[in-house]
Amino acid sequence: MCKQHNKNLYLRPMNKIDSFVADGFTQYLPGQSIDCVIIGYNEHGLNVLTLNWKEFDMWALPGGFIHNKEDMDQAAIRILKERTGLELAFLKQFYTFGNYNRRDFEEFLKQFEPKELKFQPFINWMKQRFISTGYLALVDMKKCNPTPDFLTESCDWKPINNLPKLLFDHQHIIEKALEQIRIQINYLPIGLSLLPEKFTMKDLQKLYESILQKELDRGNFQKKILKLGFLDRLEKQLSGRAHKAPYLYKFNETKYDYLLKKGIGFIS
Amino acid sequence: MCKQHNKNLYLRPMNKIDSFVADGFTQYLPGQSIDCVIIGYNEHGLNVLTLNWKEFDMWALPGGFIHNKEDMDQAAIRILKERTGLELAFLKQFYTFGNYNRRDFEEFLKQFEPKELKFQPFINWMKQRFISTGYLALVDMKKCNPTPDFLTESCDWKPINNLPKLLFDHQHIIEKALEQIRIQINYLPIGLSLLPEKFTMKDLQKLYESILQKELDRGNFQKKILKLGFLDRLEKQLSGRAHKAPYLYKFNETKYDYLLKKGIGFIS
Repeated sequence: MCKQHNKNLYLRPMNKIDSFVADGFTQYLPGQSIDCVIIGYNEHGLNVLTLNWKEFDMWALPGGFIHNKEDMDQAAIRILKERTGLELAFLKQFYTFGNYNRRDFEEFLKQFEPKELKFQPFINWMKQRFISTGYLALVDMKKCNPTPDFLTESCDWKPINNLPKLLFDHQHIIEKALEQIRIQINYLPIGLSLLPEKFTMKDLQKLYESILQKELDRGNFQKKILKLGFLDRLEKQLSGRAHKAPYLYKFNETKYDYLLKKGIGFIS
Repeated sequence: MCKQHNKNLYLRPMNKIDSFVADGFTQYLPGQSIDCVIIGYNEHGLNVLTLNWKEFDMWALPGGFIHNKEDMDQAAIRILKERTGLELAFLKQFYTFGNYNRRDFEEFLKQFEPKELKFQPFINWMKQRFISTGYLALVDMKKCNPTPDFLTESCDWKPINNLPKLLFDHQHIIEKALEQIRIQINYLPIGLSLLPEKFTMKDLQKLYESILQKELDRGNFQKKILKLGFLDRLEKQLSGRAHKAPYLYKFNETKYDYLLKKGIGFIS
């Protein structure tokens, strides 16, 4: 993974934090935040993009705030771009987290142990109650350029089945995102940004199994998926041993987009 | 419909508005609101609960704000109870509306034409930018007691296909709620709070048709619905002409709840 390092927060020039805090109280909406669950898929399964606040031995979801005159969706797109370099990815609001106790700020403060007065404005900003809207992005890990923000030291993919301890309610936010994907998999096509251009039926089944966290019957899976019609089967190469290889498929983007809008209905 | 009348806003004692505004800036989260799309079903189809601000010739969704220490879901439950008297209803967050221009406050102000200084604090509160989380409730109209809030004059069911002009982006919020129901109908059971305890297959089909806004094939509908197993068919009464009447069904609440949690999956 591409990993960038900033200096230790205490040693970092305060001007970026200062200007963020000044911005915070004048340029952002109070009490509103965005958390992005950015999910990629590779041979090890599903991965989620996390930022490391090394000072706190704490990992967090990429997130941010909403400018006074910025649409919330635009803020999410901006944050996704800042952290991954990606502009065109599947990005969708999935849930808004509004529990009073969702952020244990006292716990956060304990880890932070700020001794210097200069951190006070930052703490004042952070200790507000925030209602956070979760956005979900499914991305091609190979096209991402994980980039830490000015508060964090590194930005890394972490396997979803083996996550480090996460800040605030970020573990819950990821679980809610996965719950949404598991529901959506039943009425929306999935895989376009997660799989390579050409893939086998087994590759697609493994993706579904990673999401659903259970094994699926091969014959049944193939039958159901093919019936939906969003896959094109490619002709096998006639030369060499290719005829013994499994069929390759690619997504039929027209049909895929159609089902993405219309939904795969049992009734409609 | 039960209809209650308050006095004209200009003639109403200001103390309630004053105290709301005082509350607003001290007791509620700034810039955060809730809008409820409360849907009921009767022989005329789907209906949505709306409040009438007679002074503005304007209808609005029931909504409100979140107390400083109140969970957002609790605020939604409180608002639903205040407007309908209902405590136990299907109530679910469905989308958060965060566009910068979602509330045309200038337009609102034009209709309001406040000449008195006493309205200024109220205007200051209302003219903030609000990000609003939409909650959807499907309720039994017969069990509701529509109740206006202190700002509005009446609270009425309006047919969803013939809505009056609505405040701000409330029409869009209703459309988004319907979009969600149309998607959910494909992976969740529906009808428990909308239909009477016993109903015919035709009643259920009509409900689905009202939601999907299209006709469904009778045989196909019956086959698909029965396959899901959340209906119990009742024995016909043997006396009189009852044997010629269509079968009555009721929801099997155990299976219904199970599917509500698990989802009706095409794959899982």
